Amino acid sequence: MSQPQQDKTAITPTRAQDFPEWYQQVVRAADLAENSDVRGCMVIKPWGYGIWENMQRSLDGMFKATGHKNAYFPLFIPLSYLAKEAQHVEGFAKECAVVTHHRLESDGQGGLRPAPGAQLTEPLIVRPTSETIIGASYAKWVQSWRDLPILINQWANVVRWEMRPRVFLRTTEFLWQEGHTAHETAQEALGETDLILGIYEKFAREWLALPVFTGEKSESERFPGAVKTLCIEAMVQDRKAIQAGTSHFLGQNFAHASGIKFQSREGREEHAWTTSWGVSTRLIGTLIMAHADDDGLVLPPRIAPSQIVIIPVTPKPETRDAVLAAAEQLAVELRAQTAFGEKISVEIDKRDIGGGTKTWEWIKKGVPIRVELGPRDLEKGSVAVARRDRGPKEKAFVPNAEFVGQAGAILEEMQAGLLVKAAAYRDANTVKIDTKEEFYAFFTAQNSGKPEIHGGFALAHWNGSREVEERIKDDLKVTIRCIPGGVSDEAGQCILTGEPSARRVVWAKSY
Amino acid sequence: MSQPQQDKTAITPTRAQDFPEWYQQVVRAADLAENSDVRGCMVIKPWGYGIWENMQRSLDGMFKATGHKNAYFPLFIPLSYLAKEAQHVEGFAKECAVVTHHRLESDGQGGLRPAPGAQLTEPLIVRPTSETIIGASYAKWVQSWRDLPILINQWANVVRWEMRPRVFLRTTEFLWQEGHTAHETAQEALGETDLILGIYEKFAREWLALPVFTGEKSESERFPGAVKTLCIEAMVQDRKAIQAGTSHFLGQNFAHASGIKFQSREGREEHAWTTSWGVSTRLIGTLIMAHADDDGLVLPPRIAPSQIVIIPVTPKPETRDAVLAAAEQLAVELRAQTAFGEKISVEIDKRDIGGGTKTWEWIKKGVPIRVELGPRDLEKGSVAVARRDRGPKEKAFVPNAEFVGQAGAILEEMQAGLLVKAAAYRDANTVKIDTKEEFYAFFTAQNSGKPEIHGGFALAHWNGSREVEERIKDDLKVTIRCIPGGVSDEAGQCILTGEPSARRVVWAKSY
Repeated sequence: MSQPQQDKTAITPTRAQDFPEWYQQVVRAADLAENSDVRGCMVIKPWGYGIWENMQRSLDGMFKATGHKNAYFPLFIPLSYLAKEAQHVEGFAKECAVVTHHRLESDGQGGLRPAPGAQLTEPLIVRPTSETIIGASYAKWVQSWRDLPILINQWANVVRWEMRPRVFLRTTEFLWQEGHTAHETAQEALGETDLILGIYEKFAREWLALPVFTGEKSESERFPGAVKTLCIEAMVQDRKAIQAGTSHFLGQNFAHASGIKFQSREGREEHAWTTSWGVSTRLIGTLIMAHADDDGLVLPPRIAPSQIVIIPVTPKPETRDAVLAAAEQLAVELRAQTAFGEKISVEIDKRDIGGGTKTWEWIKKGVPIRVELGPRDLEKGSVAVARRDRGPKEKAFVPNAEFVGQAGAILEEMQAGLLVKAAAYRDANTVKIDTKEEFYAFFTAQNSGKPEIHGGFALAHWNGSREVEERIKDDLKVTIRCIPGGVSDEAGQCILTGEPSARRVVWAKSY
Repeated sequence: MSQPQQDKTAITPTRAQDFPEWYQQVVRAADLAENSDVRGCMVIKPWGYGIWENMQRSLDGMFKATGHKNAYFPLFIPLSYLAKEAQHVEGFAKECAVVTHHRLESDGQGGLRPAPGAQLTEPLIVRPTSETIIGASYAKWVQSWRDLPILINQWANVVRWEMRPRVFLRTTEFLWQEGHTAHETAQEALGETDLILGIYEKFAREWLALPVFTGEKSESERFPGAVKTLCIEAMVQDRKAIQAGTSHFLGQNFAHASGIKFQSREGREEHAWTTSWGVSTRLIGTLIMAHADDDGLVLPPRIAPSQIVIIPVTPKPETRDAVLAAAEQLAVELRAQTAFGEKISVEIDKRDIGGGTKTWEWIKKGVPIRVELGPRDLEKGSVAVARRDRGPKEKAFVPNAEFVGQAGAILEEMQAGLLVKAAAYRDANTVKIDTKEEFYAFFTAQNSGKPEIHGGFALAHWNGSREVEERIKDDLKVTIRCIPGGVSDEAGQCILTGEPSARRVVWAKSY
């Protein structure tokens, strides 16, 4: 986090002063979301929801291109379903919203109460995740190996009761997609888990401009009921990690719990191999913490609800119509251009408020390009172009046609620049560490006078034991974010025990 | 309902034999949805959800083109919010799912129970509709006339406890969109209500191939808390009406209940004027009952998840690869064509099952065009083309390139044909009736030996009183579906009382 260049920043406090509070202020200043009166539940406002719609659209396209289809399963899960998988219920029972009645009645004092006569025989759980309710359907749908694979995704809301809510990052209700697939063999299901991890990694890199570490979770961080959890982990600007997506190989655990059985090619009755995978509105929080600065949100152009905003400058009534007409014309020309293979999205801000206020609102909202267009620009045939990745007062005066022709390239350049910047930040804060002393210093040393010291990502050796994980978690609040697999494997000794280790794992404080 | 042309039908019973049961069998045969173990909650399967996705995409485009943006509000509503608007709570209290606990615990017998220590101080309602929770946000967002209008839509799930559920038509949980807008003046809000009604009417006509009556609901059929409810009403094949979408002018009722106040241009504090409007997955039920036949679903091409299915015929292993390659090539060529201004959607059914089974599955699913392609077609450079709006055995053998060139036009012709057919059916069963005797006979006469006599739409005069409505409802289960406004107004006498009437209203039995 470098110091802001200008004297005053649009967001108070700055990242350096108080990162958690800065985050809340960016969410507010960018008009993304707000807390509702229902504890832990957020209202996602149009600009925030527009980001989610773009995330949905791009991920949905990749899921469909790999043979998945969308479907929809019930919001409610019978209490007995949840209890079918022992680890699963252990993981979710403590945070379930429970529906016990299906009618209200007058309480005799002008208010309402759940009608005692309308108590449900079996309470219903508002889904915290849908493995068990979807499993009940798959058990009906699958009889033979010919019915496999089932490749289904669902876009839905889920509820996990949250005692310490934080907008986008930890909310009682959140939006997500959850893929649920069933396969003939373990190998096929593992292949699916990898395929989806690849989609998540590509999505993070190419749309969100976020480089991520990919790998497997240690047993203690696994999804409740999974055999193997793969994840993508991003670093944000306070150098903490955030889990941005997970892909689970569930083995036959849920197939046993739900009875998903099929007659194999050899005529035997077998249980299916299942997977599940998801990303949520938490990605919006990740995006904010990764790219926003002390003037507010900075949106990767590929995911911005509007890529360009045109701000008509209309100081005098007599030139107003001409300026608005020119703005409309410019929007039409820009919308005919493409960036990232799609039409550029353009908004005109015609509101009847001051130009300075408007400009700063759009800076805080993180719109990639702002274009000002006034009577004098009209005379000159030029526009004033400002980029969100440059200083707030930096403007280029460009002939109209030249800007239209370059707009797509500028957006693509900005997108690439954000990825380069995020990767440089992550790399600068990712270090190989080989001793316990160095490791503890990395996560505790007082450097730069910053109030919260989160170190960064430490690539260090581990003996594979839960004891070492727990000790480090207790001492430092640091956990294994993922165990990368593959090419860069390098043997060594566990930093705590000196025992042999096959590869370095990624350690960090996390959200 | 004409008799099916072939001797055996794919669906048993036929429409003529038992319309309600035929409906259930079509839903099953077309693989659209099924009941879940949670009473009243359905599982929407991929083919059914694909229809919903197309509905969403086209409506969403029209909402956005008219200045609306999407947002998302909490699933849960505090019990006290619901109570704020008297008529509203009256309308929904009896069908609310109530969340009372936020944690489960072991019941000591191997099961789970809601944890007594985790009972909520104020129970939460799972939203049956979101006027009150959205109103609470708008009250915060609106201070000045400059903050208006607010034009927001939400795609969401809602819950209304249903004692007699019926898939798509009446389910405890359903998916919908709900628009909620706030305006400076009554006139603006009324304009919004009309604008949306126009979008719904256009959507029904141009996408669903459904002609609808539009108009206002009588007071007794109004949305709880609305000042005025506009609706679109379609006729389905048992001649009953189905309300397919509603647009409500809420006056200042909800603004008063939620405190949505603003400083007017004149500096006075005023309450905003609000609207709400929605369509739901009930539209899928409407689509089925309007267009399906005794062989299963018939999909308007513009809303079909796949418009063309290619069925490769591979009798011998040695020609299999060539046939599959030709099918892929044909799909590529077809996908480059357009219908309704968009790329044609094509699916190849490569499953390793019999060709006859496949063909019938696709007939029952209602895919508009089936294309068979086998080794002999390859030799001839032709394909066998079957249309869902013709007999199941009718095939045209067409040179490959000719079919590719015509595909878009065929789909558009089929779409137009379905609308013509539905309009002819509706018109044939819509009659002007001027006497009580004729009216009662229309809705009760034993004609054609059909088990359920629903008459059709009766255009008849009404004195405007609730008493007449109630009497007719008690006698015949017939209600006013809508009061059309405008050009065709024609004065007359109420069929029951002889009192003067300004216009004919639309009467029918309904879903």
